[in-house]
Amino acid sequence: LDSYIFLKHWPLCVTSLASANQVTMDDFELSCKGVYRALTIREKYMRLAYQRFPLTTSEYLREIEGGSFKTEDLVQPAPPKQGEDPFDTKNLPKDLGYVARMKDGVIYVYKDAAAADKHQPKDLPCPDYDTFIDDMNFLIALIAQGPTKTYTHRRLKFLMSKFNVHEMLNEMEEMKELKLNPHRDFYNCRKVDTHIHAAACMNQKHLLRFIKRSYRVDAERVVHKLNGKEVTMKELFESLHLHPYDLTVDSLDVHAGRQTFQRFDKFNAKYNPVGASELRDLYMKTENHIGGEYFATIIKEVASDLEDAKYQYAEPRLSIYGCNPTEVFSPNLKWMIQIPRIYSGPSVRHVENNKSFDIFRGRNFVPHFGKMLENIFLPVFNATIDPQSHPELSIFLQHVTGFDSVDDESKHSGHMFCTKSPKPQEWDVGKNPSYTYYIYYMYANIAVLNQLRRERGMNTFTFRPHCGEAGAITHLLAAFMTADNISHGLNLKKSPVLQYLYFLTQIPIAMSPLSNNSLFLEYAKNPLLEFHKKGLVVSLSTDDPMQFHYTKEPLMEEYAIAAQVFKLSTCDMCEISRNSVLQSAMSHEEKSHFLGQNYLKEGPEGNDIRKTNVAQIRMAYRYETLCYELNLIKEGVKSD
Amino acid sequence: LDSYIFLKHWPLCVTSLASANQVTMDDFELSCKGVYRALTIREKYMRLAYQRFPLTTSEYLREIEGGSFKTEDLVQPAPPKQGEDPFDTKNLPKDLGYVARMKDGVIYVYKDAAAADKHQPKDLPCPDYDTFIDDMNFLIALIAQGPTKTYTHRRLKFLMSKFNVHEMLNEMEEMKELKLNPHRDFYNCRKVDTHIHAAACMNQKHLLRFIKRSYRVDAERVVHKLNGKEVTMKELFESLHLHPYDLTVDSLDVHAGRQTFQRFDKFNAKYNPVGASELRDLYMKTENHIGGEYFATIIKEVASDLEDAKYQYAEPRLSIYGCNPTEVFSPNLKWMIQIPRIYSGPSVRHVENNKSFDIFRGRNFVPHFGKMLENIFLPVFNATIDPQSHPELSIFLQHVTGFDSVDDESKHSGHMFCTKSPKPQEWDVGKNPSYTYYIYYMYANIAVLNQLRRERGMNTFTFRPHCGEAGAITHLLAAFMTADNISHGLNLKKSPVLQYLYFLTQIPIAMSPLSNNSLFLEYAKNPLLEFHKKGLVVSLSTDDPMQFHYTKEPLMEEYAIAAQVFKLSTCDMCEISRNSVLQSAMSHEEKSHFLGQNYLKEGPEGNDIRKTNVAQIRMAYRYETLCYELNLIKEGVKSD
Repeated sequence: LDSYIFLKHWPLCVTSLASANQVTMDDFELSCKGVYRALTIREKYMRLAYQRFPLTTSEYLREIEGGSFKTEDLVQPAPPKQGEDPFDTKNLPKDLGYVARMKDGVIYVYKDAAAADKHQPKDLPCPDYDTFIDDMNFLIALIAQGPTKTYTHRRLKFLMSKFNVHEMLNEMEEMKELKLNPHRDFYNCRKVDTHIHAAACMNQKHLLRFIKRSYRVDAERVVHKLNGKEVTMKELFESLHLHPYDLTVDSLDVHAGRQTFQRFDKFNAKYNPVGASELRDLYMKTENHIGGEYFATIIKEVASDLEDAKYQYAEPRLSIYGCNPTEVFSPNLKWMIQIPRIYSGPSVRHVENNKSFDIFRGRNFVPHFGKMLENIFLPVFNATIDPQSHPELSIFLQHVTGFDSVDDESKHSGHMFCTKSPKPQEWDVGKNPSYTYYIYYMYANIAVLNQLRRERGMNTFTFRPHCGEAGAITHLLAAFMTADNISHGLNLKKSPVLQYLYFLTQIPIAMSPLSNNSLFLEYAKNPLLEFHKKGLVVSLSTDDPMQFHYTKEPLMEEYAIAAQVFKLSTCDMCEISRNSVLQSAMSHEEKSHFLGQNYLKEGPEGNDIRKTNVAQIRMAYRYETLCYELNLIKEGVKSD
Repeated sequence: LDSYIFLKHWPLCVTSLASANQVTMDDFELSCKGVYRALTIREKYMRLAYQRFPLTTSEYLREIEGGSFKTEDLVQPAPPKQGEDPFDTKNLPKDLGYVARMKDGVIYVYKDAAAADKHQPKDLPCPDYDTFIDDMNFLIALIAQGPTKTYTHRRLKFLMSKFNVHEMLNEMEEMKELKLNPHRDFYNCRKVDTHIHAAACMNQKHLLRFIKRSYRVDAERVVHKLNGKEVTMKELFESLHLHPYDLTVDSLDVHAGRQTFQRFDKFNAKYNPVGASELRDLYMKTENHIGGEYFATIIKEVASDLEDAKYQYAEPRLSIYGCNPTEVFSPNLKWMIQIPRIYSGPSVRHVENNKSFDIFRGRNFVPHFGKMLENIFLPVFNATIDPQSHPELSIFLQHVTGFDSVDDESKHSGHMFCTKSPKPQEWDVGKNPSYTYYIYYMYANIAVLNQLRRERGMNTFTFRPHCGEAGAITHLLAAFMTADNISHGLNLKKSPVLQYLYFLTQIPIAMSPLSNNSLFLEYAKNPLLEFHKKGLVVSLSTDDPMQFHYTKEPLMEEYAIAAQVFKLSTCDMCEISRNSVLQSAMSHEEKSHFLGQNYLKEGPEGNDIRKTNVAQIRMAYRYETLCYELNLIKEGVKSD
């Protein structure tokens, strides 16, 4: 690192710090205290749910408090060993005999039915409702607080300028490091598609070819039942007045275009090939007459393409009841469960299993919101308590790494989550509860679930919601409290306080600028480059290749376009690839293999350039910059 | 076309036309007359050299003159028939016994040596030097003429707005046409990479893999001679202090980056893998110790990828003396010869054969500019007169479709082409002559050559220079007079008169926004979308995949990025694909197969939607719009 031109530290005397930020001493202290408390809030909820929080930030928090710090590791699923059947049900753990029941929207675990009746739950801490609301209200106030807004805005501006200076001074040196790094270049750096929906993971041309092929082979096969009558594929297509032979990408009409911009409803309709939900049922769903066979085959083909590409991985998101495609095992795939926020409302994004998920209050499938939560989480708890009596789900859960929450964020709910909000079992109106309300209950259940699973030595789950693609800034606030990492994050543009907090806590953000370009934000206006420069942890993901991409390698297309439009350097691209592996739910074993043994360490120490192709100069810059900002907070808090 | 919403014509009364353009009647007439004369100038030079000029425009010109119009076809090479050896030298035409000699920079053909001595050339019309300069001076005055600038600027603005209105009214109808069009979609529309240099036609990863593979197989092979001593590949790499096993895309360092923006010199250096010209000699040149074997193999692999992709074609450009790689025959490739403008000057783009082309005056390889022209064209004339005594070159020329002129256009020559310019044999100074001077002499020789070849029933050549990538606006003026079509054309932005003339004469422009993004103009500022909307004939091309592209399918990457950044519709993309086939030198047979039997007809008649996937509504709009503008000129000229 001799050649690295360090940016000299600004003086660390507190009064000059305040004046350097052009705020009064009082405002500086106020801001630092607010930011400090915000950091401790996130830390608390991350620990509770066995999610991640950066060690560096924790160390500074302990220093402020005068305490010391111990690391705890996440339990992540190990990949099956070579030759071992990933779906072997013989060695499932035994029944614990516990009882799981939902109370006020959260599932509690009891020793037995008697304890359950008396509500004497086992000691699996769950977030305290009132404290959570308190914490939330504190953060709501903080992000609107004038001095803190000024302070964080100035810090972010500083971070941007600092990176620009770093780039001018060290760009050639970074490149030199990479040139001297044998074997490894951008092409053979591992990259994970951190946000991709299984139902749209194939590109449009792939889907078209698959449909044509399936017809050539299976025209006479019964693929559907209509009012008890068996329908062959030929009959199905005849009823739609089309022949697969004539089908083109245009008539398939699954690609987003100019018509979908700012029109989530139109975008949703694109999930239906040729506008026919029958074809979506047949090809992109797990629960249909053929048991999701076609869907599973398509995903297998996508997985096989990834395996061929060798350095690309994906974390497809699947609706919860879809268990069959998990027979699709590939070392290049990690599964996630997505839970659509569709308690009420007709237009839903990324919901493959309308049938399973027609549990909308609006259609009277569930009596109240609590029942919906129970439908989602109770089977998962039961499979965790007694895996042998739920072998399929238990095995599936071994391959699940996290939960997502999906829907059109731009829809306003009108509801404000507070102490007076109805309990889930009381929420029996047709209206959708707010994003925050959803998020809280998902988080609370995942937290308890993770504790139970951790106790059993099972893999735990991360919470990785869609957040900040559109809608209110409170979405990003809720995720700051509860999510291990998020998808999109565009709206961090709108809140300097939250943006700065996301930086300090290094929350990974899976960004999909091509998706945004078709839906919410033009490519050149995407904040990806800005976030990356400031030091937020961004990765690149495809979201829905079927709707957004043109080529056979959607993830490479995503990287290539970002590289061209934003003029990213190789070091930038490799840093983003590294971020994607860190953000992903790859196992500890895999991450060690992809990033180097010390990947859990922060700063240059944690980087193995031979694996990641990220310059140590860049790592040093990032680490130094984070420490500098955390140190400011420390000085501000201590100066009191 | 019933559903097409026609844009109502503006009133065609001449005075209202003038006022609609907010110019006086006098200025309107002046502008129309100027534009009319400009069109006749291009028409004349296109006819002379057997190049293309739109029939519609010719028809309007004849109407203005009160005459009638006859079409003439281009002679283009037919692809070899199935099973026929494309390199068979048995059936070469006989010697005509003619003598070819250069006089004042242009080669003349004589019946015999006696006629040559008396300078009694055969009747192969060649552009008259003084008339050419007159015509050029007229155009130089025209593009600077106030009223004409105002008029053309307003017409272009109108064309832009008109397309926007068309889009809003007819976009959905166009899409409907495409959806109803069976079999054909963007993926299986033929597209030609109209501008790609052979020496950079592979992507960086491909080159890297090839180098590694060649080393594994051929480490002990003698690949080089240094001062008479044989050098094996192993020794060559040792002398460079590197081992191919350690090589990465980063150390290969052939990709353009932020460092190359506005730095053509740095860009040129990127042609040397690992900065070593020895490796460029070995892998990307035709004249080396191994007879260009590796270069030919790489190109064969690129051709094989194109054949696999099935709907993609390319027209690689090769320096003139490179004959060996033409053994690479592929139905998906058409060869072009590129002539670097390197009479003087050290930094040269796209010159693979430094050795052959070290004919710089600066290095005293040629006594004067005329000798350089003779070196280039005399062998071609001789091979045309007596193919049997130049069998290799003759066969090569059968597969050549055109000539390019390449170099950094941003370098200013300081020379102004005029009647007082020295003749080529008098140009013995070290200074480079101007772009226009080069272009004139290349055009003049190609014109005579085409007439000779046409007489013999041989394939003729088109002139397709790099033009308007940078530098003076006169480049685009020279190409307007002489070129069948051009590459780049960015600077048309700067001259409304020329831009309007390029529109009226439908000169195809091969644009490479990714190349521009790395060298001259940021992606979002590229005028491609603007040109396309106004109705200029643009195609997409890669220029140098090795330097600019990331994926295995560079042409698809080029299309995908343009589609995403510019939000192109499927109809736009298919129109651009169709333009690329029209612009290309694919044979009449191939074009009929790719675009439909009537492709030579203009307007919707010439479009076969089943082949092109371009909506007839779009074709009607384009045709109607061109006719409307030509009609304005007619009215303006006639009103006198």
